[in-house]
Amino acid sequence: MYVGALFTEGDGSPCCGARSLASLRVTVPESSGPPAPRTNKTAHPPLGRIQREEYPSSWDMAGKKVLIVYAHQEPRSLNGSLKDVAVAELSQQGCTVTVSDLYAMNFEPRATGKDITGTLSNPGFFNYGVETHKAYEKRSLSSDIIEEQKKLQEADLVIFQFPLYWFSVPAVLKGWMDRVLCQGFAFDFPGSYDDGFLKGKLAILSLTTGGTASMFSKTGVNGDFRYFLWPLQHGTLHFCGFKVLAPQISFGPEMASEEERKRMVASWAQRLKTIWEEEPIPCSPPWYFGQ
Amino acid sequence: MYVGALFTEGDGSPCCGARSLASLRVTVPESSGPPAPRTNKTAHPPLGRIQREEYPSSWDMAGKKVLIVYAHQEPRSLNGSLKDVAVAELSQQGCTVTVSDLYAMNFEPRATGKDITGTLSNPGFFNYGVETHKAYEKRSLSSDIIEEQKKLQEADLVIFQFPLYWFSVPAVLKGWMDRVLCQGFAFDFPGSYDDGFLKGKLAILSLTTGGTASMFSKTGVNGDFRYFLWPLQHGTLHFCGFKVLAPQISFGPEMASEEERKRMVASWAQRLKTIWEEEPIPCSPPWYFGQ
Repeated sequence: MYVGALFTEGDGSPCCGARSLASLRVTVPESSGPPAPRTNKTAHPPLGRIQREEYPSSWDMAGKKVLIVYAHQEPRSLNGSLKDVAVAELSQQGCTVTVSDLYAMNFEPRATGKDITGTLSNPGFFNYGVETHKAYEKRSLSSDIIEEQKKLQEADLVIFQFPLYWFSVPAVLKGWMDRVLCQGFAFDFPGSYDDGFLKGKLAILSLTTGGTASMFSKTGVNGDFRYFLWPLQHGTLHFCGFKVLAPQISFGPEMASEEERKRMVASWAQRLKTIWEEEPIPCSPPWYFGQ
Repeated sequence: MYVGALFTEGDGSPCCGARSLASLRVTVPESSGPPAPRTNKTAHPPLGRIQREEYPSSWDMAGKKVLIVYAHQEPRSLNGSLKDVAVAELSQQGCTVTVSDLYAMNFEPRATGKDITGTLSNPGFFNYGVETHKAYEKRSLSSDIIEEQKKLQEADLVIFQFPLYWFSVPAVLKGWMDRVLCQGFAFDFPGSYDDGFLKGKLAILSLTTGGTASMFSKTGVNGDFRYFLWPLQHGTLHFCGFKVLAPQISFGPEMASEEERKRMVASWAQRLKTIWEEEPIPCSPPWYFGQ
C-alpha cells in the first residue's frame, strides 16, 4: 500500500532513497581517522576543519555510547529492522547501545503538570516551561523524564529511528522531545544552538517515508526533504547543541520490492561502519533552502 | 521568563508579532463581500481569482461552523485568551463554535492498535496506516477519533491554537493530526493536496512563540517563521485539501508587557471580524522560502 507523505511501515528493509543520499553525506576518507573524543569543544569542528594529524591512528569505537530513540509499533517493520541492524553493527564495534523503544515503553507524550513531582512553583498559573525548568534544577522531574535524560547525557551519538508522520516525527517521539529536552538540561539562555548543553554529542535522523525520493525533491509535490528537516535538525537538535549528521532517509519502502528494502537495511549497516568519521551537516538556511 | 524558541505561556494577551504579520494577510476589501459558500470547489479560489460580483452582498456568517483545536494546559494563558476571544467573536457573528480542548480531554497522542476496535486486518504485522484506513472504512476506529472526525467534517473553518514547541505543535496536537487525519477520511490516493478530502474548508494556525519576530526572520537565529510552517501548512493542512489562511503569530508574549499582550488578543479579535473575507496563502516553496 502506498501511504504518501505519511506512514511508512516497511515489511523488511533499504532503497533508492538511501542511495540518493550518498551525495549529502560529507565523509572524510577512512584513512583520515575518526574525530577527536567528544569531551572537548573541538570534537566536531565545522566542515573542512578536521585535520587527520589531530587524531591518534589507533583510535577505536570501544567505549562509545549510543542511544537509539525508536518509534515504531511493529518490531518486524522496516523501522524495526533498521533499529536492529544499528544495534548489531554498533555493538560489534564495541559501542554500548541503549534503545528507548517508545511505543513498547508506552512513553507519555503529553506535557502536563504530572511531569513535576512535589509542589509547583506557581500552582495558580501553570507554565510548563517554567515549572519543568525549576523542577530540573530541584531534581523533581518525573522519573520517566529523568531516566531519558540520563541516557541522553551519557550518549555520544543519538539515533532517532522513525517513520515520517505528517512531515515530522510521530507524536510519541515529539512528546519525547517536548518533555526530555527541558530548559536547564538541554539548553538555557544563554546556552542554545552552538552553545546548547548537548554540544559534543552527535545526532542523526534515520527515517522512512511514504513518498519516493523524487516526490521529496525541490520540484517534487512534497518539496525538498531538507524543508521538513528544518524544525527537527535546526530548531530542535542544533538548538540543543547537537552536531547533526546527514539524515538516513529510506524513501518509499512500501512501494519498494523486498530486495530494495533489504538494500535499505544493508546500506544503513554499511554507513554505520564509518559513522564516527563523518562530519556534520551545516544547519543553516543555505543547506536547507539553497539560498 | 524568556523561553526562546520553545514554550510560550503568556499570562494575558498580543504584540509586535501580530502587527508584523499584517503584510502577510492578503485580504480583499470589506466591501468586496465574503467568499462563496464552502460547499463547492470554487469556494476558495486561488489568489487573485475572487470577483466581488460572484458573491451576494447580503451574505452573513450565521450558520458557519468553526472548530478550534486548542492545546494549552492553562486556561488563563495567552493561548487560553486567544481561544476565548475567538469563541466570543465568532459566536457573536452567529457561527457555531466547537472547541477541542486537548489537554482537558486528556487526548491520546499515541498511534497504536487501540485506535482500531475489533479485529485487525493483519494481526501478525501491525501497520498503523493500513489498519486505520481499513478501520475508517469499516467504521471501527476508536470513538475518540470518530468524534474528532465528526467535528472536523462539519467545520467550515478550523483554528489550531497552540504554543510553538520545538518549531512545531505540542505532542498532544501532533497526536490529534496523526490519529484524526487518517487515510480514507482526510485524503487518499488519488485525493491529496488540492484534491484532499477536506477541500472546501479553511484552516489557520494561531500560535505563540518564545522568540521575537526578528528572531524568526530570514536573518534571525531561528530563520524565517515560514520555514517551520512548511510541515504544518503544506505537508499536513494543504495535503488534506484545506485552504490555509495566513498564520496568526503572537511573537514572544513572555517578553512582552501586559499592554502588548492585550494588544495581541485585541488584534486577533479584530482580524476575526473579517476572517471570512480573507484569501488563502499560496502553499508553495516560493512563499515559504522566497525562491
